[in-house]
Amino acid sequence: MTKHKVTIMPDNIEIFVEDNTTLKDNFTEYGINFEFPCGGIGVCKRCKVNIMNDDGFEEALACQCKVKNDLIVEIPRREDKHSILASGLERDVTLDPLAKKFHMQLPYPTLKDNADDWSRLVGKNGVAPSLKVLQTLPDKLRENDFKVTVVIADNEIVSVEKGDTSHTLLGIAFDIGTTTIAGYLLNLKTGEEITQVSTLNPQIKYGADVISRINYAKTSQGLDRLHWEIINEINKLIEKAVKQAGYSSSDIYAVTIAGNTTMHHLFLKIQPKYLVSTPYVPVVTEPLVIDANEINISISSAGKIFVFPNIAGFVGGDTVAAALTAEIDKADKLTLLIDIGTNGELVLGTKEKLLSCSTAAGPAFEGVEISCGMRGATGAIDHISISNEFNYSVIGNSLPRGIAGSGIVDLVAELLKVRIINENGRILRPEEIKHPIGRKYKDRIIEVNGILSFLIEEKTASGQPIYISQKDVREVQLAKGAIAAGIEVLLKTYGAKAEDIDQVLLAGAFGNYLNEGSVCKIGLIPSVLEGKIRGIGNAAGVGAKLSLLSEKEYNRAITLSKKINYIELSAHPDFQPVFLKKINF
Amino acid sequence: MTKHKVTIMPDNIEIFVEDNTTLKDNFTEYGINFEFPCGGIGVCKRCKVNIMNDDGFEEALACQCKVKNDLIVEIPRREDKHSILASGLERDVTLDPLAKKFHMQLPYPTLKDNADDWSRLVGKNGVAPSLKVLQTLPDKLRENDFKVTVVIADNEIVSVEKGDTSHTLLGIAFDIGTTTIAGYLLNLKTGEEITQVSTLNPQIKYGADVISRINYAKTSQGLDRLHWEIINEINKLIEKAVKQAGYSSSDIYAVTIAGNTTMHHLFLKIQPKYLVSTPYVPVVTEPLVIDANEINISISSAGKIFVFPNIAGFVGGDTVAAALTAEIDKADKLTLLIDIGTNGELVLGTKEKLLSCSTAAGPAFEGVEISCGMRGATGAIDHISISNEFNYSVIGNSLPRGIAGSGIVDLVAELLKVRIINENGRILRPEEIKHPIGRKYKDRIIEVNGILSFLIEEKTASGQPIYISQKDVREVQLAKGAIAAGIEVLLKTYGAKAEDIDQVLLAGAFGNYLNEGSVCKIGLIPSVLEGKIRGIGNAAGVGAKLSLLSEKEYNRAITLSKKINYIELSAHPDFQPVFLKKINF
Repeated sequence: MTKHKVTIMPDNIEIFVEDNTTLKDNFTEYGINFEFPCGGIGVCKRCKVNIMNDDGFEEALACQCKVKNDLIVEIPRREDKHSILASGLERDVTLDPLAKKFHMQLPYPTLKDNADDWSRLVGKNGVAPSLKVLQTLPDKLRENDFKVTVVIADNEIVSVEKGDTSHTLLGIAFDIGTTTIAGYLLNLKTGEEITQVSTLNPQIKYGADVISRINYAKTSQGLDRLHWEIINEINKLIEKAVKQAGYSSSDIYAVTIAGNTTMHHLFLKIQPKYLVSTPYVPVVTEPLVIDANEINISISSAGKIFVFPNIAGFVGGDTVAAALTAEIDKADKLTLLIDIGTNGELVLGTKEKLLSCSTAAGPAFEGVEISCGMRGATGAIDHISISNEFNYSVIGNSLPRGIAGSGIVDLVAELLKVRIINENGRILRPEEIKHPIGRKYKDRIIEVNGILSFLIEEKTASGQPIYISQKDVREVQLAKGAIAAGIEVLLKTYGAKAEDIDQVLLAGAFGNYLNEGSVCKIGLIPSVLEGKIRGIGNAAGVGAKLSLLSEKEYNRAITLSKKINYIELSAHPDFQPVFLKKINF
Repeated sequence: MTKHKVTIMPDNIEIFVEDNTTLKDNFTEYGINFEFPCGGIGVCKRCKVNIMNDDGFEEALACQCKVKNDLIVEIPRREDKHSILASGLERDVTLDPLAKKFHMQLPYPTLKDNADDWSRLVGKNGVAPSLKVLQTLPDKLRENDFKVTVVIADNEIVSVEKGDTSHTLLGIAFDIGTTTIAGYLLNLKTGEEITQVSTLNPQIKYGADVISRINYAKTSQGLDRLHWEIINEINKLIEKAVKQAGYSSSDIYAVTIAGNTTMHHLFLKIQPKYLVSTPYVPVVTEPLVIDANEINISISSAGKIFVFPNIAGFVGGDTVAAALTAEIDKADKLTLLIDIGTNGELVLGTKEKLLSCSTAAGPAFEGVEISCGMRGATGAIDHISISNEFNYSVIGNSLPRGIAGSGIVDLVAELLKVRIINENGRILRPEEIKHPIGRKYKDRIIEVNGILSFLIEEKTASGQPIYISQKDVREVQLAKGAIAAGIEVLLKTYGAKAEDIDQVLLAGAFGNYLNEGSVCKIGLIPSVLEGKIRGIGNAAGVGAKLSLLSEKEYNRAITLSKKINYIELSAHPDFQPVFLKKINF
C-alpha cells in the first residue's frame, strides 16, 4: 500500500494516510478536530481547507479532496464553536438534528464548468444520488438560478427544494406506549419544543396488554389491523400538532420512534407472535431508518423515520431511550433504572457493564386495571397520608376523579403502616383491626360488589365513591413482586447487593409523583435504597426528543442498546421462587 | 486512538489496527488475501478464522469479529481457488455476479441462544435490515426449520426465501441503443448465456435520433411517454427471453443497463432537455442502483437495476461498457476506441490518461437513413469490390434486401478508387467518368426520384433495386467527417499524432463486417492506421454482461468512467474547421 504524509497546519501534525482516501476519512480516523456540517456528503461546502502546492495554497473541500501524494493542509483556525443548545429538555444537547437543511447558491454551469447537475450539488466524491431527487433536480436548479435548499437525513440527500426553505424544518418524536402515545413536535432549526400531543393507544380495543395484542396479531388481518390503528393514530396526532402550531405536516422531515418491542413490531407491520412463545425472540433489534412513505406516515414525502433499536423481546426501544436520557452509559457508580409503564423494565450497571430484564408487572402503577385508577392527570389523587387525620392531595386541586399510581402506592403503604392491610396483603375486616390509628378508619372498610374495599372519598367529581379493593391490592402485590424479584435476580447476576446501588432512577409518569418512603414500604424497591431514588419522568419520550435533535445522541442510543445485556427472567431458575417470596409485603 | 497488534498465522504477519474495527476492515486495508463470499455482510459464514485466546483457538467470522485487544488470528490455508469462469464472452471473468444466493441452515433459537431473527441471519455486526425483508422473515425462517436462501445484491439482503432456491438465479444485461435494444439473459449460477433478445427501440416513433427524442421529451407528457415506451419494451423483452428458456421473470434478480446518456435519462424518467442546450450538462453521471419496483421493471420484487455511469451529455454508459470490454484502463500503448452507433463516441488514451468526445456522426454506418440501408442482418450486402468485375457478398447468402454500413463504406471506397465519386463526394454523370474501370460501370449511374444514384443490384428480395444515392454519399461524408475530425481534435488535445496510436478498436455492429482498407480509404480513420484496426463487435453489450457476472468488473466500469475526461467538441475552436476539411474524401 502506498502511504502519503499529510502535514496539518497550523498545528504541524503529521499523519500518514492511505492513497486515494479523503482528508475527511483521515481527519476522522486520526481524531483531528474539524467540523463537517453536512456529514461529509459534499453538500454544504463548509469544510474548506487550503492545500499547499508549488504555486501556493489552493482551496479544497476536506470531504472531497483525495490524497494522492504528500500534502500540506492548512485548516482554518477554530473559532469558538457557536452551537445551539436545545432547551426545555432534562439535559442540553448541541443541536445537530436527524434532518438538516442547507441553503446554497451553486455556480452556473458553463462550457468550462460543465459538471452534471448532481456533481454540481455534491462534488465528484459526494454522496450517491437517489432517483427520486434526480427526477426533479434539473428544473428545480434552473427555475431558481441555481439557488436551492438541500435536505439531508440519514446521510442521504432526501430532497432538493427551490429557493431558500431552510427556515422551516420540523421533527416529531414519538413514545409509543402500550397504553398511551405521546408526540413531541420540535423545531429542528432552534431545538425548541413547539407542542406536545398525546392520546390513548387505539389498539387498546384489541387488548390492554401486549400479550393480548400479540394474540390478536396472530389472527387473520390482525397484524394489518393493529398496524393500521397505530399509523392512523400517529397521523392524526401529527396533524393535530402541526395545526395547533400553524405548520403543515409536510414541514416535518424526521420522526423518532421509541416503543417497547411489541409496539415496535406492530408499528412496522412485523409479526410479533414469536415474542410470546419460548425462547421469546424478536424479529429484529437493530435500529431502522425507513422512508416515511414506506409505512404511510404523513409528513414530507422526503421524510425519514428513525426507529429506536430494541434490546430483546420485552426490553424495547423505549427502555433504550430512557437509558439514554438517564445517561446510564456514563454512570461511574452502580445505577438502577426502572421504567414503569404497562410492563416494568429494569437496567442495572455502570458504564462498564449493563444488564437488563423485563417483568410482567402489569399496569397497576399507571393506575390502570385498578377499580378507581387513573393516569396522573388533573383530578387524580396523587398522595395520601394516614395518621390522626386522613389527608390526600389531588392534581390540579379539583374534586377527585380517581387515584393515580403514586396515590395507590401511598395508600397501600399507609394501610400497611396502620395494619389495615396485613403482610399477606389481606384487607382486614373492621373487627380484626388492632392498630390504634387503624381502628379510627374502620368505618371506611366497605364492601363493593361483595369485595372488601377501603373507601378513600365519597365526594368526587362523578359522585361515585373512590376506593381501593382487595383485588386492587392483589394487583399491586403482583406488580411490586415482579419488579422486586427482577431487581433481586439482576443484582445476583450482576454480582452486587442492593446496598451497592448508588442511585435508582424511576422513569414513567408514576416517577413524577412518587413518594420514596411508600415505594420502599411496599417493597417495590429495597428499603436500603430509600434516599437514593429519583423520579426522572417520561424518560423514553425525552430520549426520543434528544435523539431527534442530535444525531450524536441517536448514535449513542444505538451503541447503548448493544451494550446492554439481556437476562431472560422466565428462563432464570431464581426468578419464580423470589417472585413468590416478594408478593408478600 | 487505541491500536492493537494482530498477528496473522500461519504467515506471521503483524498488523496494527484500530480499536473496535473488524478483521475484515483490516484484512482489506492491509491487502491480506482472504475471501468474503457474501461481501462481508454477515450472511454466508464462510470467512471463518481461528482466534487464539488463553484456552486455545476459538472460531470466529472475520467479518463479524471486532478487535478489542491484541490477537493472534489463524486464517485457513488457501486452497487453490476454484472459480467459475464465465464463458461465451470476449474475455473470461471470475463469476461473482451482481446478485448472489446463499442457502443456509441457521441454528434454532433457544433460551441460551435467543438472538433476534435478523441477528441470527447476519450476526451482531452484519448488514442493516430492510423493512421489506423483516416483514416476512419470522415465518419464512420457521416454516422451513430455519433453512433459507438469502439473496444479496448491492451489499443488501434483498430477499430471504424459504428452503433452497439457490439453483435458480438469473440476470439480464441490456444495451439500450437509440435504434436497437438488446438483452442478454444470463445464468448467474454458471455464467452461461441463456439467450439473447433484441428489438427496435419503440421510441423511434418519436424521432430517429436523440435530439428529436429530447425535443419530444420537452413536451407535456413527452418524458412520461418515452419512459413508458422503453420500460414497456424492456419488460416485453424480459418476458420473451425467460419464456424461450423456460424460466419466470421472477427468477431474475439483477439487471445491468448500458445506454447513451439520453437513453439513460429516459429510462430513469429524468428530464434530458438540458442535454441539448449549452453547456450540454447531464443531470447525473454517477452510477445508480435502484429497486426494480421503483421503475416498474418486471423481475423478482427483490431485484435490483444497476445503471452504468455516464461520462458526459453525449458520452454515456454504453461507451463506458465498451471501454470496459476493450480494457482500455489496462492499455499500455495508445489506444483509440470508436463506438459507432447512432452517434460516434471516441475514447483515446492509455491506462495513464484517457480522453473522450462525441461526434454527431448520424446513423449512416449503421445503414440507417440511407436509401437502401439496413442493419447487418440476413440479406444485407456487407462487402462490395469493384474491379473488372462487380462483386458483392450478402449476409446469409440470400437475395439481397439492402445494404449494411460496411457495404456502404466499401462501395464509397470503391467508387472513389474508380473515380465514379470525386474527392468532393459528387457522383459523376456517366459522361464525366474518365477512369478505365469506372467507365465500365457508367450504365449503373441512374436517377432515382431525380437524384443521381449508383445502382448496386436489380435482382433483390423485394424486387426493388438497391442503390446508393448522392444524398446517401453526403450522409457518409458528414458522418465520416465528424468522426475523423473528432479523432484529430482528440489527438491534438492529447498531444499525440495518428501514427502514435497502437490499436484502433471499432465497436458496434458495423465493426463486425468492416473492411479496414475501405475505412481508411474514405478517411474515416487515418490511413497510417491501416493494419491496426480491429472490430470488437457490440462491446457495450459485452460490457453490460461482464458487469452482471462480476461485481469487480462493474466496479471497474465505475472507476473507468471517472478516469475518462471529456472534451466538448462544440466548444473546441479546432473542431469546426477540421470537420469542414474532413468532409471531403
